[in-house]
Amino acid sequence: MQDKIYRVNLEDLTAKIEDVPDNLMYLGGRGITSAITADEVELMCHPLGKKNKLIFAPGLLSGTSAANTGRLSAGAKSPLTKAIKESNSGGTAAQLFAKTGVKALVVEGIPQDKNTWYGIRVSPGNIEIEKTDLKGKGNFEVIETLTKDNPKVGVITIGSAGEMKMSAANLSVKDPGGKIRSLGRGGLGAVMGSKNIKYIVIDPKDSKSVYVKDPEKFKEAAKKFAKTLTDHPVSGEGLPTYGTNILTNVLHEAGGLPTNNFSSGQFEGHEAISGEKMNELIEKRGGKVKHGCHAGCVIQCSQVYNDKDGNYVTSGFEYETIWANGANCGIDDIDALAYADHLMDDIGIDTIETGAAVAVAMEAGVLEFGDAKGLVNIIENEIAKGTPLGRIIGAGAETTGRVFGVTRVPVVKGQAMPAYDPRAVKGMGVTYATSTMGADHTAGYCVTSNILNVGGASDPLKKDGQVELSRNLQIATASLDTAGLCIFTAFAILDNDKAMEAIVDMLNARFGTALSADDIMDIGASVLKTEREFNQKAGFTEKDDRLPEFFADEKFPPHDTVWDFTDQEIDEFWNF
Amino acid sequence: MQDKIYRVNLEDLTAKIEDVPDNLMYLGGRGITSAITADEVELMCHPLGKKNKLIFAPGLLSGTSAANTGRLSAGAKSPLTKAIKESNSGGTAAQLFAKTGVKALVVEGIPQDKNTWYGIRVSPGNIEIEKTDLKGKGNFEVIETLTKDNPKVGVITIGSAGEMKMSAANLSVKDPGGKIRSLGRGGLGAVMGSKNIKYIVIDPKDSKSVYVKDPEKFKEAAKKFAKTLTDHPVSGEGLPTYGTNILTNVLHEAGGLPTNNFSSGQFEGHEAISGEKMNELIEKRGGKVKHGCHAGCVIQCSQVYNDKDGNYVTSGFEYETIWANGANCGIDDIDALAYADHLMDDIGIDTIETGAAVAVAMEAGVLEFGDAKGLVNIIENEIAKGTPLGRIIGAGAETTGRVFGVTRVPVVKGQAMPAYDPRAVKGMGVTYATSTMGADHTAGYCVTSNILNVGGASDPLKKDGQVELSRNLQIATASLDTAGLCIFTAFAILDNDKAMEAIVDMLNARFGTALSADDIMDIGASVLKTEREFNQKAGFTEKDDRLPEFFADEKFPPHDTVWDFTDQEIDEFWNF
Repeated sequence: MQDKIYRVNLEDLTAKIEDVPDNLMYLGGRGITSAITADEVELMCHPLGKKNKLIFAPGLLSGTSAANTGRLSAGAKSPLTKAIKESNSGGTAAQLFAKTGVKALVVEGIPQDKNTWYGIRVSPGNIEIEKTDLKGKGNFEVIETLTKDNPKVGVITIGSAGEMKMSAANLSVKDPGGKIRSLGRGGLGAVMGSKNIKYIVIDPKDSKSVYVKDPEKFKEAAKKFAKTLTDHPVSGEGLPTYGTNILTNVLHEAGGLPTNNFSSGQFEGHEAISGEKMNELIEKRGGKVKHGCHAGCVIQCSQVYNDKDGNYVTSGFEYETIWANGANCGIDDIDALAYADHLMDDIGIDTIETGAAVAVAMEAGVLEFGDAKGLVNIIENEIAKGTPLGRIIGAGAETTGRVFGVTRVPVVKGQAMPAYDPRAVKGMGVTYATSTMGADHTAGYCVTSNILNVGGASDPLKKDGQVELSRNLQIATASLDTAGLCIFTAFAILDNDKAMEAIVDMLNARFGTALSADDIMDIGASVLKTEREFNQKAGFTEKDDRLPEFFADEKFPPHDTVWDFTDQEIDEFWNF
Repeated sequence: MQDKIYRVNLEDLTAKIEDVPDNLMYLGGRGITSAITADEVELMCHPLGKKNKLIFAPGLLSGTSAANTGRLSAGAKSPLTKAIKESNSGGTAAQLFAKTGVKALVVEGIPQDKNTWYGIRVSPGNIEIEKTDLKGKGNFEVIETLTKDNPKVGVITIGSAGEMKMSAANLSVKDPGGKIRSLGRGGLGAVMGSKNIKYIVIDPKDSKSVYVKDPEKFKEAAKKFAKTLTDHPVSGEGLPTYGTNILTNVLHEAGGLPTNNFSSGQFEGHEAISGEKMNELIEKRGGKVKHGCHAGCVIQCSQVYNDKDGNYVTSGFEYETIWANGANCGIDDIDALAYADHLMDDIGIDTIETGAAVAVAMEAGVLEFGDAKGLVNIIENEIAKGTPLGRIIGAGAETTGRVFGVTRVPVVKGQAMPAYDPRAVKGMGVTYATSTMGADHTAGYCVTSNILNVGGASDPLKKDGQVELSRNLQIATASLDTAGLCIFTAFAILDNDKAMEAIVDMLNARFGTALSADDIMDIGASVLKTEREFNQKAGFTEKDDRLPEFFADEKFPPHDTVWDFTDQEIDEFWNF
């Protein structure tokens, strides 16, 4: 079966299926979403208007038997940053899209009738728009409803945040257990909401796998690849045991854990919200320590977290979520954070942007640092209900700062910084500054050599080599995001040559190509350049590649370092 | 007495008085505020942070006996637009600054102690910072308190909006009757609030006038100038009788009166809020039809508007205010608008930005178009009290649109458009797009020849000649703003050569220079270029000189015209 581009247009409620043009043939994931956004979305359009498009694409290797290749990319012009946006997650949708033969799904236009909500159903050779009365329902209920008759279908959905077009609204994807993985920082949920789309159902019917040109060669390479992942201490041991939240204690020790709205790098309450504590509670309460977000995951960094009575609260309880709403808000109540995570999954709102916005509101005195009940109340009673305060927070950290007159607002291109202070993990600062996505840790995860000594070691407090490190990682990440590979495969790739060899072999076996590792890196570089060109044509300049002034002006305890890159040093990033 | 630059630094609570450097010697008003902002304010600083500066300057002719020369300019990096900002108004401050020998007052830094509020007192050769307990008081009470012992001093003050650092907060200046004139669109009140400055008192002591090199020549030119103003039908008759609100019916007739958030060019309720109706009510209720905002004004476009019982409600009840909160919100209750104007004066918030933001909130369904009580309630109980909704509206139309997910948001560079739809008064659209200030009607008032047939006639619905018209007017306006001349002197200048001759003679008589009319226009052109250079260095590009897409996409009734300038046509503006 030949992959196709599936399209729906909400303006006239039409759908069509198109051949894949040559220039997209060997792109997937972020490579495709960014290419289509750059080609088809009017640069200066309002992100919530009829000229924006929302694009979904599985990676090049998604749907195969290879480990950790089930990432789904979504892209559009971002309502939060007004720049190009790609974001990806696990869940079952990417593999099901691939099996359905969907190279990309493009959602265009806005319905004439603003009061009718729709769902989209995709199956091999078929795409339909249907009316729905699920508007107003939480993501968990939507997934439950849509999978009642057929638990195997994939679901992408938005909650009330997306319906209300909040700039921090994200997309929820059904995971193998019927729970939720999230993608779409930068308000991709609001883009879906602006089109009155509540959900997308993906049903591959009888299609069991994707076409692979040389199955034997593929199988061999896939086996080799999986072994590199399980052999690596981070992806084979640390992440499976403690999840991404292994990083709370690590970053606290390194003095790079942003606390109380980026005021300090160490949080007194770090132990109480750490991966070690989480592991202990999960064991005690009968949760699951290891859990995969998609079939074929051999890392299993997710988990199932139960409450004191042993009832399910959340899964995919990530370090970034725990940091943003925990340390960064001065909150050390892990059960409150788990409940907040559950609520944010149900509402469909980005946990990083939300925590960062709440911390800015705390700085403004709207509530106190450390107020766990206040945090939960804002999510449950303000954001979910769309009160003015809820809408402020839901519009993200930059808007919250604007509304409350706060000057210490940790954003780049309007997007809140994740869980690594740029003064104490300087490589991450370079990534925040230069990423086409706004502040995004996944764009070029310099924590690898800055903190974890993966792919070599570099001093996180010094500028030396950080621009080059971020550049290399951002290029490599754009390649991984195009292939549909989980970012945590990077640990093996950086430390073990066999991992990259295996990826090259898998891609060539799948498509019958003769790509080299360099060719694959060239794809990543080209994706970045496409994205940057979009941004520049939309009015972004090097001045948008800057951190807020307080990072240069305020010494960051405990190391008392500042952000000290010159503009010229940062602008070197794009010399490739 | 030699004019000096007066400076205060709130960080260390010091003050100093400096000689005027050569490059500022023949600049005043906007020429000085923009030059100092460009020279001294760090381009990428947070507008509410310690690196921004707030600059006040009287015009070159302010403080002389010449008619309509009492404009005060204030400048800074704008919290609303993040671009350079200058805004000016009447009131008594400019003339008193000039008589005190203040070429410019520069307010720098932010106090260490965030809880202490200050006032600044300026008198000849002296400048002091004093603690105050007037924080929390309305502008009217502040002025009353500060002038109790000496009604002759000038006062500049901020209300609660400025204290709360709202991006729409403006500055209030005492007028000759102890009431208020407003300046500082773009959040200059928030900049003053960020520095914990509640007020500035200007006391010229015994100084009665400014130095004029050739008093006889000056007197003669000033007499000639005043006659050109009173001879012109607009400044001699229309404005004195009906105030600026003469424009409500004029713009309705022209189909360019933005109604219900820029949805139509005609407002059914126009008669009820017109200048003609206002004139009738003022006469009936014992108000004042003519009223000057500063000594020496021969136009007297202000008025005193009383309520049904003959009690004072507001003065300087402007067309822009009546339009923004009236037609643009679908409200035809002129007494509600007068009360709203009074409240906004007391709170210290820009009436244009506020009305535009409320209309965007109406589009979002927060309240209904036409809801006069709702409008008053938002101002009185939300903005004044700093509730979340009040802070959203107080952050301006763009933020209101962001928070509520509205796509039809009429702003350029983040600042709301004033009372002329760019599709029906295309010259104004060019000014909105290109002004260094964001959408600003005063920057280049093309209504002159587009609507009023002043300075020639041009078809407001056609593109022909509009870019050139806006360019010429923006250059001329920058010159007027530097001289301290009221913008309404432009009617005479455009139609009567004697007006410009007189201005040239007055400037040369005041300073002993030999400037030509061309030299004076060159100053205006140079001010614009200084401002644009600041913006460009701060990351603005030609993409920021664009109107929101809905002006191109939606036909505007009754003429069903759209905004149809190409990017190239707009970018031609800066070719001078």
